[in-house]
Amino acid sequence: MGNNVSIGLLGLGVVGSGVIKLIESHQEKLSHQLGCNVDVKGVLVRDLDKYREVGVDQRILTTNPDDVIQNPEIDIIVEVMGGIELAREYILKAFAAKKHVVTANKDLVALYGPELQEAASNNKCDFYYEASVAGGIPILRSINDGLSSDLIRKVMGIVNGTTNYILTKMDKEGLSYETALKQAQELGFAEADPTSDVEGLDAARKMAILCRLAFSMDVDLNDVEVKGISSIDLEDLNYAKQLDLTMKLIGYANFEDQKLDVSVQPTLLSHNHPLSSVNNEYNAVYVYGEAVGETMFYGPGAGSLPTATAIMSDVVTVIKNMLLNVTGTQFVEPHFKKDLKAPSERFAQYYVRMHVKDEVGVLSIISKLFNERKISFKQILQNPVKEKGTAEIVVVTHQTSLENFRTAMKQLHELDEVIEIKSNYKVEGDAEE
Amino acid sequence: MGNNVSIGLLGLGVVGSGVIKLIESHQEKLSHQLGCNVDVKGVLVRDLDKYREVGVDQRILTTNPDDVIQNPEIDIIVEVMGGIELAREYILKAFAAKKHVVTANKDLVALYGPELQEAASNNKCDFYYEASVAGGIPILRSINDGLSSDLIRKVMGIVNGTTNYILTKMDKEGLSYETALKQAQELGFAEADPTSDVEGLDAARKMAILCRLAFSMDVDLNDVEVKGISSIDLEDLNYAKQLDLTMKLIGYANFEDQKLDVSVQPTLLSHNHPLSSVNNEYNAVYVYGEAVGETMFYGPGAGSLPTATAIMSDVVTVIKNMLLNVTGTQFVEPHFKKDLKAPSERFAQYYVRMHVKDEVGVLSIISKLFNERKISFKQILQNPVKEKGTAEIVVVTHQTSLENFRTAMKQLHELDEVIEIKSNYKVEGDAEE
Repeated sequence: MGNNVSIGLLGLGVVGSGVIKLIESHQEKLSHQLGCNVDVKGVLVRDLDKYREVGVDQRILTTNPDDVIQNPEIDIIVEVMGGIELAREYILKAFAAKKHVVTANKDLVALYGPELQEAASNNKCDFYYEASVAGGIPILRSINDGLSSDLIRKVMGIVNGTTNYILTKMDKEGLSYETALKQAQELGFAEADPTSDVEGLDAARKMAILCRLAFSMDVDLNDVEVKGISSIDLEDLNYAKQLDLTMKLIGYANFEDQKLDVSVQPTLLSHNHPLSSVNNEYNAVYVYGEAVGETMFYGPGAGSLPTATAIMSDVVTVIKNMLLNVTGTQFVEPHFKKDLKAPSERFAQYYVRMHVKDEVGVLSIISKLFNERKISFKQILQNPVKEKGTAEIVVVTHQTSLENFRTAMKQLHELDEVIEIKSNYKVEGDAEE
Repeated sequence: MGNNVSIGLLGLGVVGSGVIKLIESHQEKLSHQLGCNVDVKGVLVRDLDKYREVGVDQRILTTNPDDVIQNPEIDIIVEVMGGIELAREYILKAFAAKKHVVTANKDLVALYGPELQEAASNNKCDFYYEASVAGGIPILRSINDGLSSDLIRKVMGIVNGTTNYILTKMDKEGLSYETALKQAQELGFAEADPTSDVEGLDAARKMAILCRLAFSMDVDLNDVEVKGISSIDLEDLNYAKQLDLTMKLIGYANFEDQKLDVSVQPTLLSHNHPLSSVNNEYNAVYVYGEAVGETMFYGPGAGSLPTATAIMSDVVTVIKNMLLNVTGTQFVEPHFKKDLKAPSERFAQYYVRMHVKDEVGVLSIISKLFNERKISFKQILQNPVKEKGTAEIVVVTHQTSLENFRTAMKQLHELDEVIEIKSNYKVEGDAEE
């Protein structure tokens, strides 16, 4: 590799442009650390003539992927084109051509991470994807290296900036979901079709990646239970305030007795929880380790330069491995066979809001129903509502199993006294845990 | 090294015992990751017969340092004895005997880090000290690896748990400094002689270590300006609440135009700042990178197992380096010659509380004084005080240089209308920055 390491980019969108900018502006620090220069020798684009803000030599642009992947001068391929099948094909080709690969592609890594890792290893190539989870936060290497000697028990993440922005606006400014979403779209925090973000799919992908590393288990995207934020009502945010709770879209993973419980869902967090003060488009990942206790990693979850920073941290790692001649050595087989907790093994507190008949004895009937399932209440609020003869009751339960809670909800629904169960949410981070 | 890596411990106090516990309880994870077992083959203690909670084979205890340092079966020395000169001597001996060294000793690393790093490098040995800063938080590797491609502009840390605990109790429960300190001592968060913590010296050591890594500059402990928390008045905490600010002992380092400004001092933080919600004995380090923007790393700053987790993460790194035959390669010469900012180049906002004569026109005289030094006010509060004829004025300024602010304080002190300047603090994290 001489005194130069050369990079090939697949894609030159927002993140790819960030990588080019970062290499140019931080060349001095890079070469000081590495003792060699880093340059970009090829960039796959869709349209050669498109106007680009970032200054890049037209001669290195190409529409032919092989010009980058098979270029003998290129050592490291940075995949920032997005999409799944084509990206996978190019990356596998890159490994076959003995190129190391760094990617920011969470969709791809969530679906094909283990396969790609194995292909890398078989070719003695490096494969890194720090940027695929929580953008600029070095969370994957913190889990892999910083907490390497600990047993991680819990990972909770605010790993989608779009939904965190929307929920913050709803919570702090009382905006409706629709208005907050529109604002997020205008600011570029949400896409024109926001489904993948607001329905929790994007967060689920990141949780699958995090779980694999944190718990050394081959977690599938389908193993992550998902619920989005699109049906959240301002009413519940107002009650949350009275209860000293904050609504966040939380990716939650808990590993006990070698069994995993992983979900993405709107969750009411106690104000004591470090994640509860993570606002706007910021991301954070909370990691609970048996020995270390509570840690949290906070930063920007997206954006051109933050994501490029994560990509370049991987590129620096690959270059150091190349210099030491130890590429392709980071792969470790999963330690545990996949085993997911049953609903009877998943414990949490819950918030339930319901409309009931405004009659004497209703609260006692409801309490009895919960008590028969051994679910006790931690907090109760009752308010009259506009519709005549109707009262609104909000309860927060103590810990119970999901199975138990589901049965209680079913029975509650069947009660004559209950007009409608308006909402129910998991509650986390309370001191009783 | 065969299928075993052997560790020698210098010291078996709180942290050393944590290391032994962690190796025992997490052996399975360690051997899964590394493909080899980790055992402890020698432990230097002061007293062979002392009762110890942790179960350790009496036969590996010794009072002779050479039994550990010169033991040919031992690969890695973990220094957890504390103190400075003796620890330095043993570590230098260990390098000479071609042992890798991991330490948690911030006093030592702050004073002799560069010398020890060089000795390690000359002997092709590894030298790691993640546990020396912010206990269980993997902050050194996050700066070194995760943000390797970025230019770090600012590091702010709550890096002393004792003082954070005391300030949290003063702030949330209205305890006096003395009562809060006593409580911290009873809970084991503060030592019998708390000077090094409460006067900011401990935090200064950690900031010296952080600055070296974050800014690639040989920062000395003496370069860190230090002020402790022992003279903080509850009055100022009450005003802070009214101003939406929180008092924290902040290690602050700012790198601009290749010049550094580093201090440890009680600072009033805006509630928008991520560090403002770090409470009790927790630590956190905020890092601002040119490309990544704002990141924060949160966790326990001390304690047996959290610190042991950091030590063992370093041990795992050393073992991986041993397996790959690449030890002693992490040393990089500092990039920048040390250059500290002059007071005229250090900008901040300030909070000033003063007692003045309760007369017409006093506020206007004071405003004029500040205005003549081009310091404008962001906020002003005025209250009558008990002593007759006296008013209390609190101002928060916009940004000004430290030189300018000091001159203003001197002139203010000389004014007939000003009875006493009760306190002044730096203010950070405000939106105007």
